[in-house]
Amino acid sequence: MGEFALLNSIYEASKELGEHVSIGPGDDMGEIIVGNQRILLAVDQLIVGRHVELDETPENIGRKAIARSFSDIAAMCGTPICSLMTACMPTDTDDDWAMRVFSSAKAHAERWNGPIIGGDIATSQRGPAMFTVTVMAKPSTLGAVSRCGAQVGDVVCVTGEIGNSIASHHITFEPRITLAQDIQQALGSDLHSMIDISDGLAQDASHLTNDECSIQLNTETIPLREGASPDTALSDGEDYELLFTCATPPDVDDVTVIGTVVPRASASVVNENGDDVSMKGWEHT
Amino acid sequence: MGEFALLNSIYEASKELGEHVSIGPGDDMGEIIVGNQRILLAVDQLIVGRHVELDETPENIGRKAIARSFSDIAAMCGTPICSLMTACMPTDTDDDWAMRVFSSAKAHAERWNGPIIGGDIATSQRGPAMFTVTVMAKPSTLGAVSRCGAQVGDVVCVTGEIGNSIASHHITFEPRITLAQDIQQALGSDLHSMIDISDGLAQDASHLTNDECSIQLNTETIPLREGASPDTALSDGEDYELLFTCATPPDVDDVTVIGTVVPRASASVVNENGDDVSMKGWEHT
Repeated sequence: MGEFALLNSIYEASKELGEHVSIGPGDDMGEIIVGNQRILLAVDQLIVGRHVELDETPENIGRKAIARSFSDIAAMCGTPICSLMTACMPTDTDDDWAMRVFSSAKAHAERWNGPIIGGDIATSQRGPAMFTVTVMAKPSTLGAVSRCGAQVGDVVCVTGEIGNSIASHHITFEPRITLAQDIQQALGSDLHSMIDISDGLAQDASHLTNDECSIQLNTETIPLREGASPDTALSDGEDYELLFTCATPPDVDDVTVIGTVVPRASASVVNENGDDVSMKGWEHT
Repeated sequence: MGEFALLNSIYEASKELGEHVSIGPGDDMGEIIVGNQRILLAVDQLIVGRHVELDETPENIGRKAIARSFSDIAAMCGTPICSLMTACMPTDTDDDWAMRVFSSAKAHAERWNGPIIGGDIATSQRGPAMFTVTVMAKPSTLGAVSRCGAQVGDVVCVTGEIGNSIASHHITFEPRITLAQDIQQALGSDLHSMIDISDGLAQDASHLTNDECSIQLNTETIPLREGASPDTALSDGEDYELLFTCATPPDVDDVTVIGTVVPRASASVVNENGDDVSMKGWEHT
């Protein structure tokens, strides 16, 4: 089952969500207007054995469940408000293990300023342990940055280093909340689109393109994490770094220009030789 | 693993969630203050094979996933704003089955005025299909009604009929959102506490008690659904009716007085003979 294909089918008819929904399904977070306040909302899942190894420490499992969802807040340049957490665990789950997962999740949610204010715990006879984290955030006064605003002529930028996240970064990363805010402050309305890299640089870059534009990456300029190559960096995924397009590069540390937004080509993402690289990456199910 | 024991352990140290959290973990929904707006937030899970039969129709599965969470909005006398939905399904799940679950969920979320604005789909090699629904709502101008406000001398009221929900009501129920609002409008500040009945009348009644008060039910006055007895009605659960305490009964259709709030006794919930019935019901994991 293709995650994007299915989600698209489901939400195809959801364009008319009413006047209060300002960003609907398909972005890193949904946005809704309540009174005079804009609120961002998203949910993500962490399945033990899929998104983390079965023998990962419970502390790291709780941390990653929170960090994955808070990375979506960063991708919108938002500020965390609060979170909810669910667990569905096999009936023979050790109480101490569960407590350690939740204690770690709680501590990290508070550290990143989005305390857990509710949740639900269920048990299942079969199946792996799985967790969901819902996050609520508010956009800055400059507004949320969606995936949709790329313009021909923009530069394509990335934060941090990319590739080989599996070695350890996918467990230890810090959601780029503050860095995203710094970038938005530096760029203002010149910041046109943003996403966090979870499925892989090339595939997530394709989510910033549209009918009018493609992205051309200069793969030799990709800042590589130790153990990564330009080719693997395109597809590895789980970087949880920010990928964004803007009129001019921001004067902010830890940002690298890696490409440009070009008029729409046959492929959504191409490399410096014009080769289609848009299908690199994995479906993050 | 006891759901309440574990949740209580987890959130024991969560009392200090910051000035913006006005209702923390342990109520039907959490409440947080954003700008000048109060926002209610909750999440619930639906596990196929546990909360619905494995052979239940996909339309009813999607409907119940939404209805369970929207019942939490009713329990706070809130008004729905929007929702998020996740699915974790075995890799061999039929696409058509999944589409029918989501289409039904989407239709019911819109019908109950809380459209789905985002979500996440994952697959798992093992395990049953499971869904989570996050709901965002706003309290009325009278405020959210929590579980905590019962006062000695209150009457205890219930909506609709109780017991034998398993026959069909747990699939077909309508979340009591409008009725809850009617009750709050009729009672104003005389409405002291409210919960929706999911774990069983007696057990959920115990959640309305505190160190100062117990609840005495007159079991002969419980409005019984067809096939229920006063004894089974105390424990069946999944009624998704409202249970509330108030200074005087509201002049609203479909409300029955079934007990009183009394000074704290050794048991949190007793029947007309003083027998402890508080442990009747099931842990809704």
